[in-house]
Amino acid sequence: MFESAELGHSIDKKQYAAQEPKLREALLNAQFDLAENKSFPVIVVIGGVDGAGKGETVNLLNEWMDPRHIRTCAFGDPSDEERERPRMWRFWRALPPKGQVGILFGAWHTDPIVRRVSKEIKSAELERQIDEIVRFERMLTDEGALLVKLWFHLSKDRQKKRLRSLEKDPDTRWRVTKLDWQRFKLYDRFREVSEYYLRRTSTAESPWTVIEGTDERYRSLTAGRTLLAAMRERLDQKPAGRVPDRTPPILPAIDKRDLLGSLKLDRKLEKEKYEKLLEEWQGRLNRLSRHPRFKEMSVTIVFEGSDAAGKGGAIRRITGALDARVYEGIPIAAPTEEERAQPYLWRFWRHLPRHGRFTIYDRSWYGRVLVERVEGFCSEADWMRAYSEINDFEEQLAKDNMVVAKFWLQVSKDEQLRRFKARQETSFKRFKITDEDWRNRKKWNAYRSAAEDMIERTSTSVAPWTLVGANDKYHARITVLKALCGRIEKGLESL
Amino acid sequence: MFESAELGHSIDKKQYAAQEPKLREALLNAQFDLAENKSFPVIVVIGGVDGAGKGETVNLLNEWMDPRHIRTCAFGDPSDEERERPRMWRFWRALPPKGQVGILFGAWHTDPIVRRVSKEIKSAELERQIDEIVRFERMLTDEGALLVKLWFHLSKDRQKKRLRSLEKDPDTRWRVTKLDWQRFKLYDRFREVSEYYLRRTSTAESPWTVIEGTDERYRSLTAGRTLLAAMRERLDQKPAGRVPDRTPPILPAIDKRDLLGSLKLDRKLEKEKYEKLLEEWQGRLNRLSRHPRFKEMSVTIVFEGSDAAGKGGAIRRITGALDARVYEGIPIAAPTEEERAQPYLWRFWRHLPRHGRFTIYDRSWYGRVLVERVEGFCSEADWMRAYSEINDFEEQLAKDNMVVAKFWLQVSKDEQLRRFKARQETSFKRFKITDEDWRNRKKWNAYRSAAEDMIERTSTSVAPWTLVGANDKYHARITVLKALCGRIEKGLESL
Repeated sequence: MFESAELGHSIDKKQYAAQEPKLREALLNAQFDLAENKSFPVIVVIGGVDGAGKGETVNLLNEWMDPRHIRTCAFGDPSDEERERPRMWRFWRALPPKGQVGILFGAWHTDPIVRRVSKEIKSAELERQIDEIVRFERMLTDEGALLVKLWFHLSKDRQKKRLRSLEKDPDTRWRVTKLDWQRFKLYDRFREVSEYYLRRTSTAESPWTVIEGTDERYRSLTAGRTLLAAMRERLDQKPAGRVPDRTPPILPAIDKRDLLGSLKLDRKLEKEKYEKLLEEWQGRLNRLSRHPRFKEMSVTIVFEGSDAAGKGGAIRRITGALDARVYEGIPIAAPTEEERAQPYLWRFWRHLPRHGRFTIYDRSWYGRVLVERVEGFCSEADWMRAYSEINDFEEQLAKDNMVVAKFWLQVSKDEQLRRFKARQETSFKRFKITDEDWRNRKKWNAYRSAAEDMIERTSTSVAPWTLVGANDKYHARITVLKALCGRIEKGLESL
Repeated sequence: MFESAELGHSIDKKQYAAQEPKLREALLNAQFDLAENKSFPVIVVIGGVDGAGKGETVNLLNEWMDPRHIRTCAFGDPSDEERERPRMWRFWRALPPKGQVGILFGAWHTDPIVRRVSKEIKSAELERQIDEIVRFERMLTDEGALLVKLWFHLSKDRQKKRLRSLEKDPDTRWRVTKLDWQRFKLYDRFREVSEYYLRRTSTAESPWTVIEGTDERYRSLTAGRTLLAAMRERLDQKPAGRVPDRTPPILPAIDKRDLLGSLKLDRKLEKEKYEKLLEEWQGRLNRLSRHPRFKEMSVTIVFEGSDAAGKGGAIRRITGALDARVYEGIPIAAPTEEERAQPYLWRFWRHLPRHGRFTIYDRSWYGRVLVERVEGFCSEADWMRAYSEINDFEEQLAKDNMVVAKFWLQVSKDEQLRRFKARQETSFKRFKITDEDWRNRKKWNAYRSAAEDMIERTSTSVAPWTLVGANDKYHARITVLKALCGRIEKGLESL
């Protein structure tokens, strides 16, 4: 992988002087076109050997390009807000919106490589993280992002020379620290691990480009040209914009056991008994939220279900048990402009709770495989890939000591009709029935089969669905509270 | 101020049972109307004596209202991301968007009161902070926010009883800490300081409502009704929405010394000399950015000036001197949907740099008193009040060890024409001249007099304008770099 980056590539001054202005102009024009058509973001990921010119190249790209449409993020120690959220949260918050270039310095690959080099993690864990990253990057490209991954390489000998020469110059001496020399001792191991990492994460959609870092002119022009070529290729596609959908994966034939059909919808609870149980379980939930170790975990709750299934009521029974300062309710409606400029899951990532807190989603990322699928708001390929993207997402949450509790509230078609009619009588405006509700009701079967698929494909051991027969509201609410307490208790145990 | 909240108000069970459901329904309906028309945010600020039922009331409001459109924020210890930004940053990021209710627990008043009670700050500093808060709250209401400020009061005797009874009940014992008893010893002083604070911050637009906290039913109904009445009053205004503009303040007659007219536009620098100076000043800026104590401060740079005045070029000479990882360039164009749902300055607050970093605004919050004024995008009252809002804003930045460097780049009308024509020839697309540029040019005089007013009114000791004669780009760029270095050096000295 690195052989061709040890050949001693170089470009002479004259050549450079002739080519640099043209490259620069072309980059600026590409950037202008990108900002104009706003159809995709460009994510430049920078990695490589210390002293190979990563920082200089990033600075140069910033100098060449229009600083208004480019943003560079480096990832040092995470802030406390970042530490209390899943590992990838800080990268999600740094993603550039459509129309912009984001340069991510170090990005998500530094940590696994460095930790494997220092033997903090075993190869199995590296493997797991690589899989996670491959899937994450595929999601980015599937979402239309242009991912340009640049790796700056130096041979061992060259790295030594480079560090020495940086040390000699008083202007650059500050850049070489003890840590650099410590790392240099691990060169061979670093090379081995990163070669493996690069091989495993070079995919057709987002290959790594390895650039020899020795000669500044060669390095600069190559980096600039790689970026330009990638941008130009995407910009000049007709029609510009979205990468062509890949062929939808074939849904493996799943034995339809009719999960929702086998769910008992009519289990009832008398009012008196309900009130006793409600107090009991709300008390339990409240105590759990004040458990000393609860500060080390967090809870994300998802409510899905047909219209008028009682999601709002169940949510209120949860929030009623909690101090208003520890939870946030997020109703999911149409995405905002800033959310539309990002990958699909971005708007859910942004609301993830810190440790010690709850986020309650009233409808959620499952919209993609429910309403968006049924109404045709996204392509088949988009919702087909969403199942595994969602599973990946929830796995990451669970890894961060987050309980992911998902509730599907199911009412019968008759019960829905009864509730719609009752709502038309009520003076609670928030229960207003709209034409859309009636339209959705007509698609009852399509929604139901989408829900069946969703439950089959996204009920995982770390984030199982709880199916709730909800014809009786009392029964449904107690079921939800019980299951939620159970999940939190398990979460506390496994800390 | 507190006398009427020590009368022993109470409501009996029966009355409460009769009134609570009605209040609840009315609150839900108000919330629904608010979410529908999305014309203003509701900011509920909660303060008061410990044990007076603040938390319980907030929880109850959350229980009563639709959790999807209400959000509660408490402000404990600031996170590190918050600590490295001006004091008010954390409150800005917690502001609810239009259409939503945000409950701010403690909010901006806790800190000044508590610190004055404990004598950490003197009365002069309390005075200063009160002034700041009054202006901040006026800005919020001027921006259309509905501000509802609730203060929960208990007499000394009642507070003692309340803390004791909380301690007795095993379910609430956790809520009374040593700190509460320590604070109780300071009751008289707390009462005195907060009474003064309340008096000074009770304005016509956002008065405090003091609620006696002893009786839970009285307290709950009173808080709910106060909120409901305030929401209903605003929602039922015809036309709904924006508070009526207050009468525009009369601009005091300012001696027009024609600042821009007296600026020398034609000072020149030869290319050779420029290149030498550029290297020198860029080197100096670079070293300043790596100064060990630079980590304790931050820099915000603002560029304003007529079209084609060379803002972009000057910005690139600054960024060219810096490591791409320490700055962010923010081009200001039309606000996004999320930004439009917030007070005017929100979109500038959100990009403020952490310590050790630069943010460079290409156009800025001054748009309000330039383009928005000239083009009539906002009312006269809006841009008139913007001067002092901006001065307040920049003062807050400066207080947080932030250098605020503002550059006005001025070219002559002839030079602008020359550049427009040159740009029409160039192949750099980002220099494309649009019809809008030509339209703006026709309003040269209006823009110029807006700029004069702006400079007069917003050149303060903490954030002075640097006026740059920019007919010669080389001269302009060096002037900018020099001034910037000077400001940072001063900033470092005064740390």
